[in-house]
Amino acid sequence: MPSLTTSHRIGTPQSSVRAVVFDTFGTVVDWRGSLIHALKDFGMERGLEAPWERIADRWRAAYQPNLDRVRRGKLDWTILDELHYTALVELLPEFSMAPLPEPDLRFLTGSWHRLSAWPDAIEGLRRLRTKYIIGPLSNGNLSLLVNLAKFAELPWDVIFGADLFRHYKPDHETYLGACAFLGLRPEQVMMGAAHNYDLAAARELGLRTAFIPRRMEHGPGQTTDLSADQSWDIIATDLIDLADKLGA
Amino acid sequence: MPSLTTSHRIGTPQSSVRAVVFDTFGTVVDWRGSLIHALKDFGMERGLEAPWERIADRWRAAYQPNLDRVRRGKLDWTILDELHYTALVELLPEFSMAPLPEPDLRFLTGSWHRLSAWPDAIEGLRRLRTKYIIGPLSNGNLSLLVNLAKFAELPWDVIFGADLFRHYKPDHETYLGACAFLGLRPEQVMMGAAHNYDLAAARELGLRTAFIPRRMEHGPGQTTDLSADQSWDIIATDLIDLADKLGA
Repeated sequence: MPSLTTSHRIGTPQSSVRAVVFDTFGTVVDWRGSLIHALKDFGMERGLEAPWERIADRWRAAYQPNLDRVRRGKLDWTILDELHYTALVELLPEFSMAPLPEPDLRFLTGSWHRLSAWPDAIEGLRRLRTKYIIGPLSNGNLSLLVNLAKFAELPWDVIFGADLFRHYKPDHETYLGACAFLGLRPEQVMMGAAHNYDLAAARELGLRTAFIPRRMEHGPGQTTDLSADQSWDIIATDLIDLADKLGA
Repeated sequence: MPSLTTSHRIGTPQSSVRAVVFDTFGTVVDWRGSLIHALKDFGMERGLEAPWERIADRWRAAYQPNLDRVRRGKLDWTILDELHYTALVELLPEFSMAPLPEPDLRFLTGSWHRLSAWPDAIEGLRRLRTKYIIGPLSNGNLSLLVNLAKFAELPWDVIFGADLFRHYKPDHETYLGACAFLGLRPEQVMMGAAHNYDLAAARELGLRTAFIPRRMEHGPGQTTDLSADQSWDIIATDLIDLADKLGA
């Protein structure tokens, strides 16, 4: 009965860890490769020419500013699906594209529900699941994350979407909310992410931290999060290596 | 992209169903048989004699009154683990049992995290999962349901515990909250339960309903929920039959 037992830290920092929660976009799934693929498919089927890679990157570039508008109270609580939709509508004119019909906009927004896992992710998660409770702790909404898990066959035990908390990471409510729902103390929960900012917020609240660099998340020109910028509890090359390091 | 597509009802009532959420205690797992087993095990190990079956039944009998105290605002929001704990402490004196040490009380309360699935449940759920989003919609807290899913190997896509809503069924917030998190309209969600009251609340809100009678849930003397008391959308003999009837 994990949530009821008092467990004590003994030895290594991870020895008391009962659950590992993961950032998802970039850490578990290759959003960029998948999105470019989906956009090109769409263009092919519609006979549309467009710089799909740049559109994918511009679309993702709208992510942080939009989350920040919600985090700072400039925008009422809005789920990521709707932020994705609005961002797409706003960016298409930059590429001199004719307005797309609503069903196409919804279909493309749904591409974020159909992203492929990094090659190591499913094996790593399957192994971690034998020993830990695992789940996403993502800025995606729950329905997006459920659909994504089915599409990419991610073997989660539980799904934490930002809409459970009505807060986006790195707001503290997300990390502490997941710990509370799990009935665990922060030091019993490890945050796994490819992004240093996410781990910094988690560490500040007492969670354990695992850095899994994804140096191609943003494509070959990536300049951020190429390496750990703090001494995280674990630095793993990928999720299989994380399973090794966590004894799973 | 299930949550973004407008789907229309065509033909049978269940043709638009995208998700099936389940009552868990009684419907998916055999709480009574498992609990009696756990209590007897505990008694054997401790050398304690007690009418364990009656204790199990009395423990469960405290369930509805305690939930109702929360539902009516007589008690602040309290998760089921804590209600179980308090109920156990209160009932032991009835059986002239000496006070048990705190770790034993916590251990026994944790028995509710370690219940076995009915024999048909795992196969039925595995099949349903290939075609639908499936998850518990239970009065258990999320951590209880996560632990239970790991123990009983329930292949859920998502976990809805009452603590996500801070309401207990049959409060409307639970059913409508699950639909909202799934990004689905009520008629796209089916409630599966062995309890007519649960389905009545779900139907009132527009959800589809599936009755799965569990005539031994309360043991051989069961007098309630032996049959459907409304014409539910589906009446299934068990979860394998439900998978058949839902084409999964």
